[in-house]
Amino acid sequence: MTYCVAIKLKTGLVFCTDSRTNAGVDQVNSYSKLHRFNSFADRKFFLLTAGNLATTQAVIKAMQNDLEAGAPFNLANAHSTTEVADYVGRLSVQIQQKYVAGGPMAGFDASASFIVGGQILGREADIYLVYPEGNHIAAAKKHPFLQIGETKYGKPIIERIINSQTAPETAMLCALVSMDSTIHSNATVGPPVELLYYAKDNFQGEDTQYFFDEGDPQLAKLSNAWNDKICAAFSGLPPLGDPFYN
Amino acid sequence: MTYCVAIKLKTGLVFCTDSRTNAGVDQVNSYSKLHRFNSFADRKFFLLTAGNLATTQAVIKAMQNDLEAGAPFNLANAHSTTEVADYVGRLSVQIQQKYVAGGPMAGFDASASFIVGGQILGREADIYLVYPEGNHIAAAKKHPFLQIGETKYGKPIIERIINSQTAPETAMLCALVSMDSTIHSNATVGPPVELLYYAKDNFQGEDTQYFFDEGDPQLAKLSNAWNDKICAAFSGLPPLGDPFYN
Repeated sequence: MTYCVAIKLKTGLVFCTDSRTNAGVDQVNSYSKLHRFNSFADRKFFLLTAGNLATTQAVIKAMQNDLEAGAPFNLANAHSTTEVADYVGRLSVQIQQKYVAGGPMAGFDASASFIVGGQILGREADIYLVYPEGNHIAAAKKHPFLQIGETKYGKPIIERIINSQTAPETAMLCALVSMDSTIHSNATVGPPVELLYYAKDNFQGEDTQYFFDEGDPQLAKLSNAWNDKICAAFSGLPPLGDPFYN
Repeated sequence: MTYCVAIKLKTGLVFCTDSRTNAGVDQVNSYSKLHRFNSFADRKFFLLTAGNLATTQAVIKAMQNDLEAGAPFNLANAHSTTEVADYVGRLSVQIQQKYVAGGPMAGFDASASFIVGGQILGREADIYLVYPEGNHIAAAKKHPFLQIGETKYGKPIIERIINSQTAPETAMLCALVSMDSTIHSNATVGPPVELLYYAKDNFQGEDTQYFFDEGDPQLAKLSNAWNDKICAAFSGLPPLGDPFYN
């Protein structure tokens, strides 16, 4: 599996993902699930991917091919990030349909989910969650984050900490803590961890990026500090009162 | 949905469950999911239930009927808690099969999961997770807890705090914090919350029980204290170091 989270802040967008993939327990690998389309003067897009690796790779490849071939619709001529989310959904469904038309592949799961984020000059920076069915939802002011993959373990901390006014450094740290909780509880999610902050309107400059490999001392330090602090927080809780009956 | 957790301690067993059930959004109700079989001199059993409410109610009813009718196998003559877990699995599969034999109910999900816990005089107090397929697993010394329903939100805190040596008060508090995180993140899990501690060999005495209804001040106090402490713990984390490139 996978865990990816994206956060839409007032100042920009945060993306965080693990890199573990598995096609059965004897084929556990590491692939980047954070894809950057950042060679334009007036736009920048990011894609987080979860689900069938062949499907997600084929979608990325098709996006690159459309761009190079100057297809009627491609990333360079899109008018909005919503259009790009639509486009990713369309490609994903097309690719999945090759494998699910019954026959020898019946029952095979080619489905994939995506988070599409980015900005086009003059428009808002935004994030979208593209479902396996190809449709998508946007983040909302009251719910400024989107998750795909193993989303549940790391959701409580994000809900407690994040709102759209959160500072980028805090949001990045929170995404990493959310990732750490997920890695702790689910063996199919693991390092390397990629973390990126896109400051809005930064179309041509570098983004703020972190890459934490397996055994990275900074990630280990954060993980230990968080564990210690959670245990201390727990032991500081008021005791339960009198039972119902004893 | 549901969230139930059971913990096997050196000193006894902890059970915690929410009480929200829903059969579609217009039929959200509250049913106890903690069932007690405690009218024996030499044994005591507890059942936590998740999944299709009709199935879980039918299983409980069948267990009561078998007991009253003195069936060849019933709770009063079982030799071990494992046998009881087997029995619950058998009943569950029988009941589900009535609804899944194709025909008008094809595609209908009658599945249910159970945690069976308890003790028989002279034997260890133990807990088992019974899958919808009827088979079961036991808790292990290295993994002294079992969960059913919406298990993921509340798993990280239990993994950080609980081991088999944990004091009963601490384990009960941790189960409640785990429940609180789940209620926060998932609208289908909600109060009343039931919490019970069975001290081993306590076959005839009362168990330590808590019942927290919607708006219970003690539960609200715990929930607020935990939220404050988590936020404080988070703000005490060391900041991220220098990015990869900026």
